[in-house]
Amino acid sequence: MYDGLTVYGSTEFIDNLIDKKSLFLCTIATTATSKIPGITGAGASPDLTEYTPAADVEMIVHDRPLCLTEIPKTVSEGGSAPTPAIITKAALNLAKIPFMVANAGVLVKPDLPYINLGEIPGKDIRTGKAVHNPKKIFENGKILAGMLSNLTDHLIIGESTPAGTTTALGVLTALGYDASFKVSGSLIENPHDLKKKVVNEGLKAAGIKWGEKVSDPFKAVEAVGDPMIPAVAGLIMGSEIPVTLAGGTQMTAVCALIKSLQPDFDFSQVCIATTIFVVEDDNSNIQHILKQIGEISLYATDPLFHESDNENLQRYLSGSVKEGVGAGGAIMAAILQGTDIHQILQEIENLCKKIF
Amino acid sequence: MYDGLTVYGSTEFIDNLIDKKSLFLCTIATTATSKIPGITGAGASPDLTEYTPAADVEMIVHDRPLCLTEIPKTVSEGGSAPTPAIITKAALNLAKIPFMVANAGVLVKPDLPYINLGEIPGKDIRTGKAVHNPKKIFENGKILAGMLSNLTDHLIIGESTPAGTTTALGVLTALGYDASFKVSGSLIENPHDLKKKVVNEGLKAAGIKWGEKVSDPFKAVEAVGDPMIPAVAGLIMGSEIPVTLAGGTQMTAVCALIKSLQPDFDFSQVCIATTIFVVEDDNSNIQHILKQIGEISLYATDPLFHESDNENLQRYLSGSVKEGVGAGGAIMAAILQGTDIHQILQEIENLCKKIF
Repeated sequence: MYDGLTVYGSTEFIDNLIDKKSLFLCTIATTATSKIPGITGAGASPDLTEYTPAADVEMIVHDRPLCLTEIPKTVSEGGSAPTPAIITKAALNLAKIPFMVANAGVLVKPDLPYINLGEIPGKDIRTGKAVHNPKKIFENGKILAGMLSNLTDHLIIGESTPAGTTTALGVLTALGYDASFKVSGSLIENPHDLKKKVVNEGLKAAGIKWGEKVSDPFKAVEAVGDPMIPAVAGLIMGSEIPVTLAGGTQMTAVCALIKSLQPDFDFSQVCIATTIFVVEDDNSNIQHILKQIGEISLYATDPLFHESDNENLQRYLSGSVKEGVGAGGAIMAAILQGTDIHQILQEIENLCKKIF
Repeated sequence: MYDGLTVYGSTEFIDNLIDKKSLFLCTIATTATSKIPGITGAGASPDLTEYTPAADVEMIVHDRPLCLTEIPKTVSEGGSAPTPAIITKAALNLAKIPFMVANAGVLVKPDLPYINLGEIPGKDIRTGKAVHNPKKIFENGKILAGMLSNLTDHLIIGESTPAGTTTALGVLTALGYDASFKVSGSLIENPHDLKKKVVNEGLKAAGIKWGEKVSDPFKAVEAVGDPMIPAVAGLIMGSEIPVTLAGGTQMTAVCALIKSLQPDFDFSQVCIATTIFVVEDDNSNIQHILKQIGEISLYATDPLFHESDNENLQRYLSGSVKEGVGAGGAIMAAILQGTDIHQILQEIENLCKKIF
């Protein structure tokens, strides 16, 4: 029935969304953590990673980045893979799903109309003071969700947050979850040891012991998180309509924050939709993390890059990039609108030709 | 049929909007022009006028301003009148019309989620360099309208721009229109001579002669306009759905800019909706200005303050405030949703009691 989509759990959440109106909101954030060499592939070089969120959303809106001369890519031995924003753009274009951007806190602001939820980019989490006033970002997310709930039937929330799996590991750990060696990553070789070391330094600097659950959930974000996490948590908690979290293990940190803020929160109107590159990854385990939080529907989409001749896209098959900018969820939303997955692949290939 | 609404021209525009979904977008902007003593009543003192837009929208979203201790008011001999944001809030509340904020360029940013169209507040127009890059603000408005056109059936655009009738006079004059002594104003005694003097100084500083039409329409905005004008012009030109301009003579400057950018622009999907305090004002003439631009439907609403015991609201009857924050258009939108005008008055009175 849902060609191109793998269901982990029930189809109930998506059954109710067929032909409903959707809005895709891409939440962008940066922390200086992304400049640590080797921690992320979300940019051609460590210094460019703080441009990636702005460039991603500019590419979707303007067909090319304005803040950079090239579109973001993940470079690894043997070649480079384009930003998953290409996948998101292709899926949303075909399904005519409206796209908006929410800024939770970025260093480089995108050159397009965006909704402001926070003004201040995150710092390197090794400082133990990564996010300024996460509660305010959270409250702004809640208010925005209230506004958007009147404008559509279904909110799809993607994110572009370089080094976001490291900050997700930080928040999950500080909230008492076992996520070490379980978070995903944009590089073929997931630098789990480096991520753990960076989180550990941040926790130490914040006076939090590894394995100890902090009592104030926002303290976890403030110390070792990123601005995206409280923004999206607020969006979910303020939403009066179903929400698809379009992302990988980073979105489990969002769910963990909500669970800590409100232990009896009802996740039946929330799902996570990601790519098969995340769900089938041997070097991370989204389901292991999710199980600790609660019953949250998980869906995975396959953009069929094994059928493509494009060498850059094929690099996704080796584990490069995997997910980001809500790529997996954008594909799911397009499928729910009746778009064929083969058409989406073709549109991705067309965009690659046009944009590169 | 439309109780509480006076129609100048045809009802066709509003006939098509009955029971359609609406979104109210309040565009905020400041220029340092508002600090010229005696030029505007949009604030308890000249120095507070740059807080007014933020305080207005904060009051609508949070029930009270966060950037000021008091809600904005217009002070004149004998008492003070509350900001028209009270009227807007009452009408939108009752009709359950979603509210969002677009920042075209303000000095004091509101403490709530807002859509960013411009980052830079306007300067005093006497410098002849009031607005930084109005074309970029315009382009952002166009893109935003494209996004919003997929989310609702009807866009209502209000504004909060202190000294905005002076900047409107500036733009209208530089675009070759006769608007001197015709623009409205928030004070009981409209300081037409001061407005004309200030505009004249700005035009001189920009090397534009009074009565001479500038060849580049954006040059008029850059020299003697405010950031709201290009933002709203862009919103209209980018919209695929009907747009109600909720405002008084300031909105004629927006229409004039559009007409200069595209002389054959079709205004059939645009109307201006304001209060009777603007349309029936002996000291300004919105219809005289509109006639020079083209056939644009004009509607006026009456909040029935003559039936109220509230002394602060009664000050509107003497010519204080008149319009702002899209008050007249918000009432019209509520009426189109079937809300009774007497109910709106009651809600305004309730809010006054609750908030003061």
